[in-house]
Amino acid sequence: MQRFDPVDPDFEIRVRSSFHLQQLMMTIGAEMTKVAPGEIHIEMPFSPALTQQHGYIHAGIITSIVDSACGYAAYTLMPAHSGVLTVEYKVNFLRPASGEKFVGIGRVIKPGRNLTVCLGEALAYEKGEGKLIATMQATMMAV
Amino acid sequence: MQRFDPVDPDFEIRVRSSFHLQQLMMTIGAEMTKVAPGEIHIEMPFSPALTQQHGYIHAGIITSIVDSACGYAAYTLMPAHSGVLTVEYKVNFLRPASGEKFVGIGRVIKPGRNLTVCLGEALAYEKGEGKLIATMQATMMAV
Amino acid sequence: MQRFDPVDPDFEIRVRSSFHLQQLMMTIGAEMTKVAPGEIHIEMPFSPALTQQHGYIHAGIITSIVDSACGYAAYTLMPAHSGVLTVEYKVNFLRPASGEKFVGIGRVIKPGRNLTVCLGEALAYEKGEGKLIATMQATMMAV
Amino acid sequence: MQRFDPVDPDFEIRVRSSFHLQQLMMTIGAEMTKVAPGEIHIEMPFSPALTQQHGYIHAGIITSIVDSACGYAAYTLMPAHSGVLTVEYKVNFLRPASGEKFVGIGRVIKPGRNLTVCLGEALAYEKGEGKLIATMQATMMAV
Repeated sequence: MQRFDPVDPDFEIRVRSSFHLQQLMMTIGAEMTKVAPGEIHIEMPFSPALTQQHGYIHAGIITSIVDSACGYAAYTLMPAHSGVLTVEYKVNFLRPASGEKFVGIGRVIKPGRNLTVCLGEALAYEKGEGKLIATMQATMMAV
Repeated sequence: MQRFDPVDPDFEIRVRSSFHLQQLMMTIGAEMTKVAPGEIHIEMPFSPALTQQHGYIHAGIITSIVDSACGYAAYTLMPAHSGVLTVEYKVNFLRPASGEKFVGIGRVIKPGRNLTVCLGEALAYEKGEGKLIATMQATMMAV
Repeated sequence: MQRFDPVDPDFEIRVRSSFHLQQLMMTIGAEMTKVAPGEIHIEMPFSPALTQQHGYIHAGIITSIVDSACGYAAYTLMPAHSGVLTVEYKVNFLRPASGEKFVGIGRVIKPGRNLTVCLGEALAYEKGEGKLIATMQATMMAV
Repeated sequence: MQRFDPVDPDFEIRVRSSFHLQQLMMTIGAEMTKVAPGEIHIEMPFSPALTQQHGYIHAGIITSIVDSACGYAAYTLMPAHSGVLTVEYKVNFLRPASGEKFVGIGRVIKPGRNLTVCLGEALAYEKGEGKLIATMQATMMAV
């Protein structure tokens, strides 16, 4: 793992404040459980309201927590008074999103003034054991 | 546009029944507004509950409707008694998801026995005018 | 298809000059066969020197001509004295790259001051008939 | 890192034999420098014949070695008498492909009977120091 030095010492407050503005995260019961330079974890419980046709969490919801994790991972390293937008992402789904709890993890692999590239993962937890269910490769933009 | 001949004459019932099992679609107020061989449209209204930090619809929700549209576009061409899963997708976000209504469109470009490749689009409508806000390239699998 | 107005009236000379600097294109025998605002075609013949283990053209070479086509499609709309770089791309392979001739097509779907999003296609020609063998979704950057 | 048990004890011979059939790899001077269960390294020297307009190695050539590395990483875990094809990949380019030597690394993250998902990296070496220049997320298929 790389080590990153945030240019904004108040990055955690900035990141958490922005996360709290994402009403979707409240709607799906997601919480930010780790904020570190270049790395963010977001957790959500299983909910039948978010499922697809087989009763698993919908791919787009898993994508939502990994996208927010990657976006905020990038945002930890951006300057104060910046904003962050998703340029694009690609997600592979490895296993069904079945379990009690889901964790989206975003990690910066290449920060940049304009563009930051992140790798993301989603884990599904069942009886305390976590399994990798999706991987993301994403490009984020400072605005 | 290619023309496709569904192997299952009852594809529309099969697709609509599966869609109604996606509880996420009900949660976000999405409806399937077009079902044709190899092409699906899914529509949803704006809702503050689904927004990101700038008040636009979250990228993961836009992805959800385009993913379902692509998955069901693939599913129109699959045999009766099959199921459909998302293998992977990639999405580029072109403009903010701002507007009254959002439409996800999925179109098959290469059907296959196991894998089907689709292109998707998301449009945002404001005062009746639609703008392209995202494009998807996706791989779906028959199970 | 969208219509684009290039800001640089000499875009064709600029694009063709840059293409001639891509020594890889000469190495693989590729030619630029269409230059239009927001759209580029690049053609190459089959060569055993560029094959993978089954005797088809290697995915990376097909990617090369579609990438150059997308990059230069974006570049047609960029200002004089700019450069163009590939930020990222995603490619789906639909059919084996078998045939006498291969055409990579790049089309801009969303130009931007910094980032331009393109869709690309690769066609394989056998006895005059072209088949779609790959699709690309790419992000290009002006520098 | 995960540990994988190849079902075919002769996977290394099978992988190396197939690699030697990829004439593109010979054309670009690439060698397979590591073969392990679920992991492959492929190395190539800089060559002006493979460059883009700024004198760096063309994105499509970097993609070629990472694609072959990912495909053969997947192939190490496939049964004897199988073949491997690239379904799709996505690549982010992080830094210019400048240096004396380039290494493509492919690693399986989720093997499967039909589909195997891999993560890939490309490193550029300059005076012995390697830098990450690209990351890939790819889906491979057993045939």
